[in-house]
Amino acid sequence: MNGRQPKDLMLRCAVKTISGQFKKSDLCLEHGLNARDLRKIDSRVPNLIPTILIRKEAVLINILHIRALVKADAVVLFDTYGSADSRLHSVFLYHLEVGFPPISALSELDALTQHNLKAKGSGLPYEFRAIESILLSVLSALEAEMVFIRNLVGGLLAEMEDNIDRDRFKRLLHYSRRLAAFKNRAKLVEEAIDEVLAQDEDMNAMHLSDKINNVPREIHDHEDLELLLESFSKQVEEIVNEAENTEANVQSTQEIVELILDSNRNALLTLDLKVSIATLGIGTGALIAGLFGMNLTSHIEEDPYAFYILSGASAGIALLVAMAGLRRLSKIRKVGLSSNIPDRSPKPYLTLPLRKRNPEGWV
Amino acid sequence: MNGRQPKDLMLRCAVKTISGQFKKSDLCLEHGLNARDLRKIDSRVPNLIPTILIRKEAVLINILHIRALVKADAVVLFDTYGSADSRLHSVFLYHLEVGFPPISALSELDALTQHNLKAKGSGLPYEFRAIESILLSVLSALEAEMVFIRNLVGGLLAEMEDNIDRDRFKRLLHYSRRLAAFKNRAKLVEEAIDEVLAQDEDMNAMHLSDKINNVPREIHDHEDLELLLESFSKQVEEIVNEAENTEANVQSTQEIVELILDSNRNALLTLDLKVSIATLGIGTGALIAGLFGMNLTSHIEEDPYAFYILSGASAGIALLVAMAGLRRLSKIRKVGLSSNIPDRSPKPYLTLPLRKRNPEGWV
Amino acid sequence: MNGRQPKDLMLRCAVKTISGQFKKSDLCLEHGLNARDLRKIDSRVPNLIPTILIRKEAVLINILHIRALVKADAVVLFDTYGSADSRLHSVFLYHLEVGFPPISALSELDALTQHNLKAKGSGLPYEFRAIESILLSVLSALEAEMVFIRNLVGGLLAEMEDNIDRDRFKRLLHYSRRLAAFKNRAKLVEEAIDEVLAQDEDMNAMHLSDKINNVPREIHDHEDLELLLESFSKQVEEIVNEAENTEANVQSTQEIVELILDSNRNALLTLDLKVSIATLGIGTGALIAGLFGMNLTSHIEEDPYAFYILSGASAGIALLVAMAGLRRLSKIRKVGLSSNIPDRSPKPYLTLPLRKRNPEGWV
Amino acid sequence: MNGRQPKDLMLRCAVKTISGQFKKSDLCLEHGLNARDLRKIDSRVPNLIPTILIRKEAVLINILHIRALVKADAVVLFDTYGSADSRLHSVFLYHLEVGFPPISALSELDALTQHNLKAKGSGLPYEFRAIESILLSVLSALEAEMVFIRNLVGGLLAEMEDNIDRDRFKRLLHYSRRLAAFKNRAKLVEEAIDEVLAQDEDMNAMHLSDKINNVPREIHDHEDLELLLESFSKQVEEIVNEAENTEANVQSTQEIVELILDSNRNALLTLDLKVSIATLGIGTGALIAGLFGMNLTSHIEEDPYAFYILSGASAGIALLVAMAGLRRLSKIRKVGLSSNIPDRSPKPYLTLPLRKRNPEGWV
Amino acid sequence: MNGRQPKDLMLRCAVKTISGQFKKSDLCLEHGLNARDLRKIDSRVPNLIPTILIRKEAVLINILHIRALVKADAVVLFDTYGSADSRLHSVFLYHLEVGFPPISALSELDALTQHNLKAKGSGLPYEFRAIESILLSVLSALEAEMVFIRNLVGGLLAEMEDNIDRDRFKRLLHYSRRLAAFKNRAKLVEEAIDEVLAQDEDMNAMHLSDKINNVPREIHDHEDLELLLESFSKQVEEIVNEAENTEANVQSTQEIVELILDSNRNALLTLDLKVSIATLGIGTGALIAGLFGMNLTSHIEEDPYAFYILSGASAGIALLVAMAGLRRLSKIRKVGLSSNIPDRSPKPYLTLPLRKRNPEGWV
Repeated sequence: MNGRQPKDLMLRCAVKTISGQFKKSDLCLEHGLNARDLRKIDSRVPNLIPTILIRKEAVLINILHIRALVKADAVVLFDTYGSADSRLHSVFLYHLEVGFPPISALSELDALTQHNLKAKGSGLPYEFRAIESILLSVLSALEAEMVFIRNLVGGLLAEMEDNIDRDRFKRLLHYSRRLAAFKNRAKLVEEAIDEVLAQDEDMNAMHLSDKINNVPREIHDHEDLELLLESFSKQVEEIVNEAENTEANVQSTQEIVELILDSNRNALLTLDLKVSIATLGIGTGALIAGLFGMNLTSHIEEDPYAFYILSGASAGIALLVAMAGLRRLSKIRKVGLSSNIPDRSPKPYLTLPLRKRNPEGWV
Repeated sequence: MNGRQPKDLMLRCAVKTISGQFKKSDLCLEHGLNARDLRKIDSRVPNLIPTILIRKEAVLINILHIRALVKADAVVLFDTYGSADSRLHSVFLYHLEVGFPPISALSELDALTQHNLKAKGSGLPYEFRAIESILLSVLSALEAEMVFIRNLVGGLLAEMEDNIDRDRFKRLLHYSRRLAAFKNRAKLVEEAIDEVLAQDEDMNAMHLSDKINNVPREIHDHEDLELLLESFSKQVEEIVNEAENTEANVQSTQEIVELILDSNRNALLTLDLKVSIATLGIGTGALIAGLFGMNLTSHIEEDPYAFYILSGASAGIALLVAMAGLRRLSKIRKVGLSSNIPDRSPKPYLTLPLRKRNPEGWV
Repeated sequence: MNGRQPKDLMLRCAVKTISGQFKKSDLCLEHGLNARDLRKIDSRVPNLIPTILIRKEAVLINILHIRALVKADAVVLFDTYGSADSRLHSVFLYHLEVGFPPISALSELDALTQHNLKAKGSGLPYEFRAIESILLSVLSALEAEMVFIRNLVGGLLAEMEDNIDRDRFKRLLHYSRRLAAFKNRAKLVEEAIDEVLAQDEDMNAMHLSDKINNVPREIHDHEDLELLLESFSKQVEEIVNEAENTEANVQSTQEIVELILDSNRNALLTLDLKVSIATLGIGTGALIAGLFGMNLTSHIEEDPYAFYILSGASAGIALLVAMAGLRRLSKIRKVGLSSNIPDRSPKPYLTLPLRKRNPEGWV
Repeated sequence: MNGRQPKDLMLRCAVKTISGQFKKSDLCLEHGLNARDLRKIDSRVPNLIPTILIRKEAVLINILHIRALVKADAVVLFDTYGSADSRLHSVFLYHLEVGFPPISALSELDALTQHNLKAKGSGLPYEFRAIESILLSVLSALEAEMVFIRNLVGGLLAEMEDNIDRDRFKRLLHYSRRLAAFKNRAKLVEEAIDEVLAQDEDMNAMHLSDKINNVPREIHDHEDLELLLESFSKQVEEIVNEAENTEANVQSTQEIVELILDSNRNALLTLDLKVSIATLGIGTGALIAGLFGMNLTSHIEEDPYAFYILSGASAGIALLVAMAGLRRLSKIRKVGLSSNIPDRSPKPYLTLPLRKRNPEGWV
Repeated sequence: MNGRQPKDLMLRCAVKTISGQFKKSDLCLEHGLNARDLRKIDSRVPNLIPTILIRKEAVLINILHIRALVKADAVVLFDTYGSADSRLHSVFLYHLEVGFPPISALSELDALTQHNLKAKGSGLPYEFRAIESILLSVLSALEAEMVFIRNLVGGLLAEMEDNIDRDRFKRLLHYSRRLAAFKNRAKLVEEAIDEVLAQDEDMNAMHLSDKINNVPREIHDHEDLELLLESFSKQVEEIVNEAENTEANVQSTQEIVELILDSNRNALLTLDLKVSIATLGIGTGALIAGLFGMNLTSHIEEDPYAFYILSGASAGIALLVAMAGLRRLSKIRKVGLSSNIPDRSPKPYLTLPLRKRNPEGWV
């Protein structure tokens, strides 16, 4: 199998992208599938759980936006979402044709990588190169989504540095739902790849070219495929890991925000209490003033200093009451974790040594 | 075994649906069961944990609403819930008779699928077709329940977009209890299927027709059954996954709702505090007015401007007090996550590199 | 070994119930135990972790209330708790003697079951029938406890439907502690049984009669024992599962109750705020009245309408202030999850397809 | 190897307890260790993770307070913490010498146990008896710590029955930190033992005496050692289990305490609201009084009943306002879980059967 | 291979530290790598997941700050972060050259360790010594970071003993994010090492010198490497364990802090309520005073004692109202966990025995 032949086959395959309507029975007969398998590539049935099914003459891949049938000499691509994401598909198809994976983000690598992968490409059988292209497309979709969500969440958390308000909580809810859904999807992709990796039989059965050409194979001899799948598994794991970290970050932010809101509430309550205490003081003073405002004879009406004395007295009582209240408040207010526990019971010998380091002895 | 024969057997089996009263001992003797097994098909004992028991001449399936005994040439169906769900049973029985699974939701697939499955059906032994029918019935029941709960929860969460009130919390509790119970049931169904899949011996022992016809079998040769069970396992897993996602969604909604309620409470407290502060200001003004309302001689009674001066003064003091209070409030009020931590200690070298990307070097 | 002989042995064994005081060394010598094993059957050492120890001539079972030594021809039962639960023991002993398990809850089954199990009983070796009796006793104890706790918790949750108060929380705490302890115990019982099931050697070594009679055995030939233990394991799993469900139910109830309390608190605060606002309004009116109550000359003392004008004015100001406060409150009050997020950033292609179903294409 | 000889060796070993300073290189050479191993027994490096390292001529045990080197004929004990816990060491050394484990808590067992273990002891090789002594020392340290913490936590929870205050929360924090650290340590001990148990090679390599005497061994023949280690593993598991239960207990107490505090807060708020409402009522009455206290002409000054009418009116208005407020409060106040959900949607057939038990049918 | 030769090679290798720009294709060709592998050592791609890739002629290590290619006679080190952490690199390089690991923290060990490791070093093949140096560098980086974070968190928790405020919560958030990220990184390092340990083939393939020299090897014969990797794995596990403990500590602190804040809030509310009750009392008194302050005829204007009687009465009423309020408060205020549950239902027999210890019986 030389460098040219796969390319030709590829072009033929690119044509095979199916967006029209086909007879299912024809598909089954042509590719050796059974009816149950068709459900997996029917674009009208949403598949949350990605699958890599190994059949006699084909590998059926259904991961995220890609539903494809990889054969020894062709890739049948099912046009899952009409024209909406045509950009994604055309990029994917281009790479499938040219025979090396898209490394858009690492443009400096291209020169070498192209050279390398082309060289390598001729070495790998057609079906593996196709699977690599598919997995790369999946990976770049996952990465794009991860970057997008990371920016969403990161931006929100940065905004929350300045101010925490209800609207931001609502956005946090929307983002964390989205993040959870994404993490779940990425995890399922990882599991689908790992499931194939775990089964020697499946790995073996994926050598479609060898099967067609009747090349005899040993059951454990599939290092190339293993390296290929392991590499993708690791990269998806990295994405899952990042999603989990982001989730943990959101979670701990939520917890601390709750503590901050609680603490803030206590501060508000403390101020409220001070105001209430002051109001009580003022009220007490007002009561005294009110009493002397009654149309009754207090017998000091004509005393020239009574007004000043009583004004002073009521202000003084107001102050006294407020001070008393504030003193009681100050006792409650201080919040710390230290507790003067006199630790009434003796410590057992076990815990002691584990904390202590003995500096003596030993050369 | 040709295409006709199983159909006839089927009809015979459909008659065998047991809703009357039978002698247990007869059942045991007839189908080679032991007494413990009967508990599993006794409709009066509620079975939470689904089981697929493989016995010498029969497979005893007890999943959700179905309690059946699958034999090489007949299915004995135990009438578990009287006439209540007769619709479910009649649908199930019809499909069992006709010999292909119900694909109600995918009506366009029918033409092909019928053709395919019929063709396929003649290939699969009778007991597998029966098991497939049973599992399809289980699956459609799970799917119906999932759709129902998803709509319940989804509707409630949509309502909560507009308004969060106590009544909705109570409904949320009822729904999340129901969701948890459903998830648990679906998970147990998945486990029951996976348990069979994990045991080569059990899979082998399920080839009842081959046993009867004394067809010699290899222990690992059960690809058809494996594909059948794996396919159902995957689909139940998908349902479990969706239930888990819905649960996570409910959980994160609860968490955010708590934060929103907390934040709302702080807003209420802040407004309350403002009102209290204003009341305190007004009270201080009123105290002054009250003092001059005392029936005592202030010596300015006759001053023509005293009224205006003191009215202005008390209003001014009211304002001053309120302003002082609001200024203190404004210090507490602002809530953000940013902390001007001067990060007194130097960063170790480890964390630095992991964040930085070095753009130089390397062709 | 005919049907009679085990019965006789049984009677002998029933006598062997040990409630007196025995020499430990004699026990060790007689039954081939080592000293460490005795700790497990010493009634003064509480054993939280159930164990099934297989020794050369005996199986040592220590589960919940039962501490027994099963030999090929006798069961030694250690009188663990004196006379307190004599009912339990006598029931257990009766069944051990008669040779079939107690199926108290399923009395209709008895006729058949007795017949069956007797027939079966003669087939099973003595030690397995003894183990079955012991496990049935354990199972019925677990079931009784589960029913009891389920009723406790269910009753409390039903009461909480009407009213949530502190006393109910305290009972909830007591019940959930009890539930957690029970779940833990049941789980450990399941693990003890599964541990035996996982080890072919142990299963093999449990054929005490065969060992004594020098019947040669194959290592994997222990189907009867496997079915017996698996059946119990499943039933204990069912109990554990129910306990977990009850726990999850309690947990989600707690979470929702917290939300309801929070929501209730906000409602209380809102009403409080309304009252405060009204008080502020009233206070403002009172300040005006107070100012005109000062013993100062306002120059309108003699105006015949001034009283009505000022009364109206102060009432009007009271109303105005209250209205202004309530308007600010109404802005804060509404709580919903909807956020008018203009979702500034474009959605990536990945999430789109997973939600959309493409209705076109494909026959 | 007779009963005397090990004892002599033991005494020699007891002398070998190392508290002075030794050359590390000598140690390595003498016992066939490599330099990395020395870190594990260096008392200045705190080792959180217990290890049982099997080397060519020795077993290196480093668990909790014990750092020992077990050889076929000697135990080298490293004096880890100076004289502080000399009691522990002397007890340990005594038991190592006499040749049977300390069963301090079970003093009645001693007579038999001593006899038994001595008999047994002669059977077990020296290195196993040493390991048993070490593990018993570890176990009794763990048990002592567990009892201590259990009492601490239990006492605190009992105190909280009477009163929940902040100081108790702080103590709860200290205790639960300590409990978590203890559980972690016990778990690691269990893992260290289980790790040895899982590896046939390691178990085999631990037969140091056989190695020295060149006794040929089969790889799976190590029942004595297995029983020994399994027994300790089970007992440590029991301690871990108890620690986990205590932790779960603390956790659920915390959750319920939070609910009780929340509920208490609502009760406080409700009373506060009542007071506020009463204050508002009083304030309204005071406003009316204030209006008539203005130095303005109300034209009813001379009416002899006006005072009583207006006093009654202001009191009545105060009451009316308070009643109106309390009525609104009573609507908010009631808190229950019942929601009159009219459950608008029909229940699917799936959930129904699982709750219902069909009492008819079946003999 | 004698002691000198590796050193020379080393120097050559130290020169090989790559900080300039190299052709990727040359690298691939020279070291037998494929293009995918290059991504792992490209310093511009941040790698969260550490990897140890075993290739035909080299081991590719990418852990934390180190990206190295270990060959049988050289180490190629990729200059990942420019000159920033040149100290780390120069230390690492020095140790690589001299041929023994840096044990900076344990300087007393140096004399012996150097001697030992040098002796040992000549025994170990070059590639293992290189890997050991790399892992030691990784380990000391992890340890430094752990110490740093432990101090950060410990210091903060110590500060919180004195006072809990919002700024500390924010710092807690920053620290716990950092701790979570660190724990994750350490865990991934442990997994990377364990992954190699789990695969005999990989371990075998790492004997690069033997491969070059065509030394025949058995698949399971790699004890030296196993001990080396296991030792590092244990040490990283210890760090992960400490990070987890710190995390659990932070978590339980957060939980208790929330309880303390809640409890504090209740105390504030209680005081607030007392103030409100006093205000209500004062207000009631003021109402009475206000009524008698009305410009209306109460007919007791001239009574000489009316003033004192009414002053006393209003003060008395103020007191009465306040007392009534405080009595109601005292009923709500007490918070404890004890509930006088009359435990209406009988206890089942199961729980009883497990709590009771029977002291009688048994010699």
